[in-house]
Amino acid sequence: MSNQLHNELKKEFQLERMILFSDAVFAIAITLLVIEIKIPELHDHITDKALLAALGDLIPKFLGFITSFALVGLYWTVHHRMFGYVTAYDRKILVLNLCFLFFIVLMPFSTGFYGEYSGKEFAAEQLKVPMTFYVLNYFFVGLFNYFMWRYISNPVHKLTEPPIDPLTLKLAKTRALVVPLTFLAMIPVAYLVNVVVAAFVPGFIPIAMKITKRIINRRYKHLHFSATR
Amino acid sequence: MSNQLHNELKKEFQLERMILFSDAVFAIAITLLVIEIKIPELHDHITDKALLAALGDLIPKFLGFITSFALVGLYWTVHHRMFGYVTAYDRKILVLNLCFLFFIVLMPFSTGFYGEYSGKEFAAEQLKVPMTFYVLNYFFVGLFNYFMWRYISNPVHKLTEPPIDPLTLKLAKTRALVVPLTFLAMIPVAYLVNVVVAAFVPGFIPIAMKITKRIINRRYKHLHFSATR
Amino acid sequence: MSNQLHNELKKEFQLERMILFSDAVFAIAITLLVIEIKIPELHDHITDKALLAALGDLIPKFLGFITSFALVGLYWTVHHRMFGYVTAYDRKILVLNLCFLFFIVLMPFSTGFYGEYSGKEFAAEQLKVPMTFYVLNYFFVGLFNYFMWRYISNPVHKLTEPPIDPLTLKLAKTRALVVPLTFLAMIPVAYLVNVVVAAFVPGFIPIAMKITKRIINRRYKHLHFSATR
Amino acid sequence: MSNQLHNELKKEFQLERMILFSDAVFAIAITLLVIEIKIPELHDHITDKALLAALGDLIPKFLGFITSFALVGLYWTVHHRMFGYVTAYDRKILVLNLCFLFFIVLMPFSTGFYGEYSGKEFAAEQLKVPMTFYVLNYFFVGLFNYFMWRYISNPVHKLTEPPIDPLTLKLAKTRALVVPLTFLAMIPVAYLVNVVVAAFVPGFIPIAMKITKRIINRRYKHLHFSATR
Repeated sequence: MSNQLHNELKKEFQLERMILFSDAVFAIAITLLVIEIKIPELHDHITDKALLAALGDLIPKFLGFITSFALVGLYWTVHHRMFGYVTAYDRKILVLNLCFLFFIVLMPFSTGFYGEYSGKEFAAEQLKVPMTFYVLNYFFVGLFNYFMWRYISNPVHKLTEPPIDPLTLKLAKTRALVVPLTFLAMIPVAYLVNVVVAAFVPGFIPIAMKITKRIINRRYKHLHFSATR
Repeated sequence: MSNQLHNELKKEFQLERMILFSDAVFAIAITLLVIEIKIPELHDHITDKALLAALGDLIPKFLGFITSFALVGLYWTVHHRMFGYVTAYDRKILVLNLCFLFFIVLMPFSTGFYGEYSGKEFAAEQLKVPMTFYVLNYFFVGLFNYFMWRYISNPVHKLTEPPIDPLTLKLAKTRALVVPLTFLAMIPVAYLVNVVVAAFVPGFIPIAMKITKRIINRRYKHLHFSATR
Repeated sequence: MSNQLHNELKKEFQLERMILFSDAVFAIAITLLVIEIKIPELHDHITDKALLAALGDLIPKFLGFITSFALVGLYWTVHHRMFGYVTAYDRKILVLNLCFLFFIVLMPFSTGFYGEYSGKEFAAEQLKVPMTFYVLNYFFVGLFNYFMWRYISNPVHKLTEPPIDPLTLKLAKTRALVVPLTFLAMIPVAYLVNVVVAAFVPGFIPIAMKITKRIINRRYKHLHFSATR
Repeated sequence: MSNQLHNELKKEFQLERMILFSDAVFAIAITLLVIEIKIPELHDHITDKALLAALGDLIPKFLGFITSFALVGLYWTVHHRMFGYVTAYDRKILVLNLCFLFFIVLMPFSTGFYGEYSGKEFAAEQLKVPMTFYVLNYFFVGLFNYFMWRYISNPVHKLTEPPIDPLTLKLAKTRALVVPLTFLAMIPVAYLVNVVVAAFVPGFIPIAMKITKRIINRRYKHLHFSATR
């Protein structure tokens, strides 16, 4: 191999290494989510009925597990798409990525904490602390995701070659803000209205995404490139 | 490097990234299986005899560990073979793959739950809930595996280039259904006959596979390509 | 890229995937070893002296952790060296590799079990069960490692191209047997002599290795290739 | 592909394998850090106030988690930079790397141990054992990192091609010593002055780094290459 090709491959591997390291962290965080669901331990009167009831008690934990799996999975696909554009790296993107991963790593704790205190036996208590913790964790995941989009797409840093087309980028960055902000809206709803109602707020995300997409497509249609991807 | 080669390598890396992420999830799930086997803690009369008895009590857990290790390992080899054909990716295969991995990640819990309540002290109780949970988990692993075979082999999606030869594909897809369906048969056997008998149903899988292979080879022998692989 | 180069790269990636999956399992198993060392929990009279004493009680666990880390690390380097020769794969090497990994995955349990019952408070009891379990686990790691050397080096399977030079192979295969067999010798020593004495048996491995190397070099010096690597 | 290119790619993959294995260990260690933070379990009087108080009790653990995440993340970036220069491997660098990873793997334990006994309820006790354990763990991480810099940059071993420019190397090696030595300074401060004061010592690292950089740049300015990277 020529020396120059060698150098190029080495640089590419250094970028790939950062990506595969992130993937390993994603993979472990997504798998650890299940660890917080403890196997029900009954000691007497072990019947199918008692076991079903014990599984029933785990429903909030399962819902938390499913939600967090979906969210971590979603952010993995976003990370996957984002780094599909990235062709170089610098020290700052390594650090930004580590900050982003920090909040991914915290997800099993937040999920477990929220799941532990969100069963129907707590509905009367209107506990807001576990939900707030969970929402803030997720908000920071989204926020650092947004910072990463901003950083890699800034032509000054020369990390994407060719540059991302403006409409796609606009859409990606706006989405990166819409999702955590919708989540953040759960907090005032929980404090002012009702904790149970708040849990349904994320259901509006698909609608918010559609509206966002329409607005951006209308406002930025003068940008030439297509936004399909 | 030419720009075009660069692009091709980038696309290939994006596919590889998805595969290596799956591998990390597989690897963690397969290793976490052992975590549910707690080290026996004796507090007095710690003798070799007592330790052997304590290990004996763990036998159902070990059997569960071995079975699940074999099953997760099997599905890893299937995933490995499947993606040996895949040469491109799209958003939907990422999502299908995440759904498949969801049920892989759930395996340590199901295995632990089934192992916890399948010792001989429970034989009289005929507990069906843990087995049903385990079987359903495994059924969904198999089902999503089948969906993935279907999706990647559909020429509309252009994910395999060259296309998988029809006989191999027919065999892979049928097998992908036979295994989870045989497992599913454990449930009626458990409810109508006996839980212990049901545990032997998977023993019929090799036979079912052979019959399937023979039928497919006979019925589709007009397809030109060889089905060996 | 030409189609043929594409195919070759795909095949190579399929082999690499199997190797990187193994690495992930190794990495998780080696990291889980530390999980069995629980943080000492004191509830009253928490002083430096009490904490030091609590750490002192963990010494057998730390020794177990260090030994197993070294052993898993050793087998990783062997796996690394072995697959440095491998240029193709088949279904059977996938399965052999999974069997090998099964016993790697079991190491955290065996280590924890042995560490739990090998403190000096058990010296009088002469407990043999935990050591036997640990030794057998390690023996199977070594045995499957030997099977893999045999399988990949068999020219019938065409997995190494060019073939491994005969002297290197002879040395690798013999070593692959000497290590687990020396470990196995711990069992009769433990039962016939003394458990504490048995723990020193692995100390003979370096000597056994040197003798083996000398014998092989002498007996097979007619083989032309050098055995240095 | 030509045979020679094939060989070169194989060698490169063997090096990459060692790097990706390290990454997996880093990823797992950094993710396990969060496992030591147990979800607060309240049994009666579960109110938002009580949950907030329970989270408050976890602050030392969170601080430990954040610090260790930052430290492991820092050493990952150093490892990433270091192996950006490395173009070959030998048996000894595999072993050195495993020793380095040993102390990375130990971090979750040290962090949990230090976090467990560093809450304000222990301020009066002036517990030094957990901090000493943590500092020593971190010191060995840094020490082996230094050994690795020394080893790979030694032209005798031919692991970096082209060689690292002397000024960059001098800076990297000095930094690799300054960080763990500053940490080590926590121990005399803790024993002679105060444990709480000692916890602020690492705050001097950025200053120590700046001074180091200035001294080296001045003393070695006759070395031609630039030290920016």
